[in-house]
Amino acid sequence: MKETTLKEIAEILGISITTVSKALQNKPDVSKKTIEKVLALAEELNYTPNSFAVNLRTKESKTIGLIIPEVVHHFFSNVIKGIIAAAEKNGYLVIILQSNESLELEKKQVALLINKRVDGIIMTLSNESNNDFHIKEILRKGIPFVQVDKISKLIPSSKVIINDQKAAMEAVQHLIDKGCRKIAHIRGPENPQNAIDRFLGYKKALEKNGISYDSKLVYTCKNVTFEEGIEFAKQILEEHPDVDGIFVITDLVAVGVLAYFNEKHIQVPNKIAVIGFSNWFMAQIITPKLSTIDQPSYEMGLAAFTLLLEEMICHKNGLPFLPRTIELETCLIERESSMKN
Amino acid sequence: MKETTLKEIAEILGISITTVSKALQNKPDVSKKTIEKVLALAEELNYTPNSFAVNLRTKESKTIGLIIPEVVHHFFSNVIKGIIAAAEKNGYLVIILQSNESLELEKKQVALLINKRVDGIIMTLSNESNNDFHIKEILRKGIPFVQVDKISKLIPSSKVIINDQKAAMEAVQHLIDKGCRKIAHIRGPENPQNAIDRFLGYKKALEKNGISYDSKLVYTCKNVTFEEGIEFAKQILEEHPDVDGIFVITDLVAVGVLAYFNEKHIQVPNKIAVIGFSNWFMAQIITPKLSTIDQPSYEMGLAAFTLLLEEMICHKNGLPFLPRTIELETCLIERESSMKN
Repeated sequence: MKETTLKEIAEILGISITTVSKALQNKPDVSKKTIEKVLALAEELNYTPNSFAVNLRTKESKTIGLIIPEVVHHFFSNVIKGIIAAAEKNGYLVIILQSNESLELEKKQVALLINKRVDGIIMTLSNESNNDFHIKEILRKGIPFVQVDKISKLIPSSKVIINDQKAAMEAVQHLIDKGCRKIAHIRGPENPQNAIDRFLGYKKALEKNGISYDSKLVYTCKNVTFEEGIEFAKQILEEHPDVDGIFVITDLVAVGVLAYFNEKHIQVPNKIAVIGFSNWFMAQIITPKLSTIDQPSYEMGLAAFTLLLEEMICHKNGLPFLPRTIELETCLIERESSMKN
Repeated sequence: MKETTLKEIAEILGISITTVSKALQNKPDVSKKTIEKVLALAEELNYTPNSFAVNLRTKESKTIGLIIPEVVHHFFSNVIKGIIAAAEKNGYLVIILQSNESLELEKKQVALLINKRVDGIIMTLSNESNNDFHIKEILRKGIPFVQVDKISKLIPSSKVIINDQKAAMEAVQHLIDKGCRKIAHIRGPENPQNAIDRFLGYKKALEKNGISYDSKLVYTCKNVTFEEGIEFAKQILEEHPDVDGIFVITDLVAVGVLAYFNEKHIQVPNKIAVIGFSNWFMAQIITPKLSTIDQPSYEMGLAAFTLLLEEMICHKNGLPFLPRTIELETCLIERESSMKN
């Protein structure tokens, strides 16, 4: 169908195209009355500004791309909220692509964002990501780029992270302080840096306390789901009935562990203490309330956009930009699931 | 930076541009050896296919847009999963835009999707949507369009819905069958059709059973959050201590209600029975387990893409398309929160 143009609006109102354009942008050198007239007619004629034309002039799309693995974990939905809040405040729209933890899909999505000419990209790697080729492509194209949460250390971009190793050590130290001596770990998949770091933190806390590490006590999630929590809780009880503590990669999985223990009437924390990671709001609703590490998800989203904006501004003005890493603080939250008598 | 072109790859290998193009598409009329050579060089030279060029030829972007209010509710993350699964199977990428329940943002996102030339749009309206202008714009542009879950009846597009009124009647009838006589309703915001329909179902179930409707027993969520569940549970206890049943718009809010009642040691279901809506997986983890209406979220996502694909195929081939509505079945799930003795 035929599109209404600035020219048509100008002709109907008997004013210049420049005035129409300024009125649509609410510029102060156009009278209030003219602005009202132009807006009313633009609405009546169903005028849509052509964003591609705007792009040619400003070389900006005012759109950023966000690739995330999934949104089932409350953590990611909060990161998204933080990014959208900061982006909107600065006049940017956020295009979200969900990789469903698939490397193949992630590659297609990176190519799509590059082609759609977004001004910048924020990304949390999928669990399958161990091939950095498609991500380096973003840097080769000179597109501002920030990694958040699940990152690759090998990619020289800005990053927003927490100290996963330190936080995990703190969680496991807490279990030891409460008297646990045989502690299992339900870890994340092999590739993601945060799963590796939390595992290393678990191991270090054991060593520091003279508890020998036993690889048989480590269970590896494939999909990091509630169902895997149920499954591993069952396996731990069968294979190591004397385990007295479990450190779980994330709250969603830990809630699965608690659900199974509740069903089997296993006393938590007195028989087995449990601690999660992320501080999902459900952690304080379930019975027993779940001890966890609070991860500032919303703030991580805000910080990611802030770093991206800095780089986009440098990029626009042809200035060099040195990637920065922001590390946010976590904190231990003690609740019923680790409060041994 | 300079982009590698098909022409360069063709020149280096001494073959035609057509052969390079076919090789990149893995066409059967090119030899395996040539395909391997082309792929290796394309990777070495960092070649990215130009999707805009592809667009000009096929007039398709193989990309669809999805606008959703938010992803905190498990329901929406399942709808997204269904849409992505069906889209991927058919070679489409899904661009997600999250309106955060804001009409203003939703309008910008519709304009963005139109400008980015997506092949089709799937949308769940924000709670603020009562102005259909920007949505009718999608139809005016002739872009294939499907509404899912929170829809506007006034927009003549394909729709994927459930029978909210019938399902709500069933939920309230269940409370009445269990002996409840003074039933409160925590409803959704004023605008969304599904909130209106669930409210009407509540009212009809009361009428059908000769229980008079009392508007003071209806509490209206603004943001449909866990926190509102806590707040309204408190208000109901204070204002109507003799309420013996509550029908809640969705499980997330109902879980807030249960959290408050647990804290105050209010016996659920014997003092007050509670039923939710959506069948969030947490509904069966909390204590007491929450009765609810199962809503086939993943299937709604699949159906939405299927309808969109039908319309996109008609659109591509210049054939007329008559919008269709798919209504999926719900079912009552009885759990502890309504199992009165």
